[in-house]
Amino acid sequence: MRKDLNRYMNHLKDGVDKALINYLYRLDIPERLKNSMIYSVEAGGKRFRPILLLSAYDVYAKDFEKALSAACAVEFMHTYSLIHDDLPAMDDDDYRRGKPTNHRQFDEATAILAGDGLLTYCFEIILEDPLLSAEEKVKIARLLSECGGPKGMVAGQMLDMEAEKKQVNLAELEKIHALKTGELLRFSVLAGALLGGATKQQLTQLEQFAYYLGLLFQVQDDILDITGDEEKLGKPVGSDAENEKSTYPKLLGLDGAIKKKEEYLSKAKEALANADADASYLMELTTFVSSREN
Amino acid sequence: MRKDLNRYMNHLKDGVDKALINYLYRLDIPERLKNSMIYSVEAGGKRFRPILLLSAYDVYAKDFEKALSAACAVEFMHTYSLIHDDLPAMDDDDYRRGKPTNHRQFDEATAILAGDGLLTYCFEIILEDPLLSAEEKVKIARLLSECGGPKGMVAGQMLDMEAEKKQVNLAELEKIHALKTGELLRFSVLAGALLGGATKQQLTQLEQFAYYLGLLFQVQDDILDITGDEEKLGKPVGSDAENEKSTYPKLLGLDGAIKKKEEYLSKAKEALANADADASYLMELTTFVSSREN
Repeated sequence: MRKDLNRYMNHLKDGVDKALINYLYRLDIPERLKNSMIYSVEAGGKRFRPILLLSAYDVYAKDFEKALSAACAVEFMHTYSLIHDDLPAMDDDDYRRGKPTNHRQFDEATAILAGDGLLTYCFEIILEDPLLSAEEKVKIARLLSECGGPKGMVAGQMLDMEAEKKQVNLAELEKIHALKTGELLRFSVLAGALLGGATKQQLTQLEQFAYYLGLLFQVQDDILDITGDEEKLGKPVGSDAENEKSTYPKLLGLDGAIKKKEEYLSKAKEALANADADASYLMELTTFVSSREN
Repeated sequence: MRKDLNRYMNHLKDGVDKALINYLYRLDIPERLKNSMIYSVEAGGKRFRPILLLSAYDVYAKDFEKALSAACAVEFMHTYSLIHDDLPAMDDDDYRRGKPTNHRQFDEATAILAGDGLLTYCFEIILEDPLLSAEEKVKIARLLSECGGPKGMVAGQMLDMEAEKKQVNLAELEKIHALKTGELLRFSVLAGALLGGATKQQLTQLEQFAYYLGLLFQVQDDILDITGDEEKLGKPVGSDAENEKSTYPKLLGLDGAIKKKEEYLSKAKEALANADADASYLMELTTFVSSREN
């Protein structure tokens, strides 16, 4: 089964990679801006959000074409957030996935603009997609603005910045991650399922699923920062502790964090099972998230 | 007539100010993020873009309610661009309209996030507006992403940054302003007219009008930086020359810039006359732009 999942994920990733590049290369814009946007999108890794979106679509419908613009949009949204997050005024990171961060490769002004450009462009590619009806465009773009905006991911970034200066409890930590990481996963699951034709009741279950998947994703991130392999991660381990970041292991100990992970995993799978559809790939993807090595 | 225009503009401005505040105050988000977004929106000045949008709507329809979300969206888009533009890595401005810039009042990270938040939120308020049909939402939000995004305003910002390091000619200067300032004015005019029900042929003429209005707006900005009254402007005059910015007066001399202004004014009015509608307020607004003192 794992081999199948890998093949399936690679198939989706190839389609997404091609579409992402097409969306960017066709832009007739100032070269430095274009290069900077392309640089960070090409430096992107697993394409987890687009794959999640297409997998959710796949539960209810076939032929990915219709979900590709939304899949690329969430990757652009995610990429912009990384570019801005890496800036000196934010996390001040020089490297991401082994390559210089955008502002190190170009400069801060260009990085800010590349982020702004990707953020705005992700709406355009949904709203111009000839495969979507006006109603679908509105639903998807609205969901993206809600999940990515000041009520969603941006709020998570803000809380994350503020948490650096204080001790947070488990409820606060979950809130930060549900917003900072979880909201774009929520978008991915719901947008894919919406476009695929899921019912309202299925969407409610999937929303639960996405919530726990987001927390699962993050707790595994925190665990990998302690137990991971630097080469596979593409970044040094132990940086969370060094930066005194609020993490699950810091709050619960490593064993407690692992236990929490199992709890999230089982809750995610339970919600998914209740979504009442053949979601075997999504189920496998969930297991994969909890055992991934990078 | 001028008195009427003033009363009319103040009436529109009041409606916009109230709606802007409502959109922000209702947000249940981290307090610092909210305060930072509100700070810059409330520090806003003339609300020129919303007024322009509502004036264009008014040419073809009555009752502004339907155009209010688009009017607020373009002001949020404009405000985010000012916040990011003021950052140390960009123009590095400490004051705007006599008040500390966002990153001086809060901090750089908060300013980046407040900008990101406003940029994302401007799409949400259009896409959720119950007064608009799905087709209208798609048209308006798509236009906003095109005008504000990497092909539009963001491209203009990039070219403007690059122009600081070199001598530009008149064609290059016009391109920078058409993108950096002009694109949001184009959005305002077209979105207002679209929602009001203008015909395709009228929209083509209005697009011409918006183009020259954008250049008119900018050349007057440049002229005011030399001849303006510091108190009325709320900023020191002569800062363009000090920062070695590419301006019309630098390229054409002050007399040449004034002559250019007259040329833009007459072209804008000609296009507007061809839009074949009772656009007396837009016509007055255009005269106002060319003679404004701040």
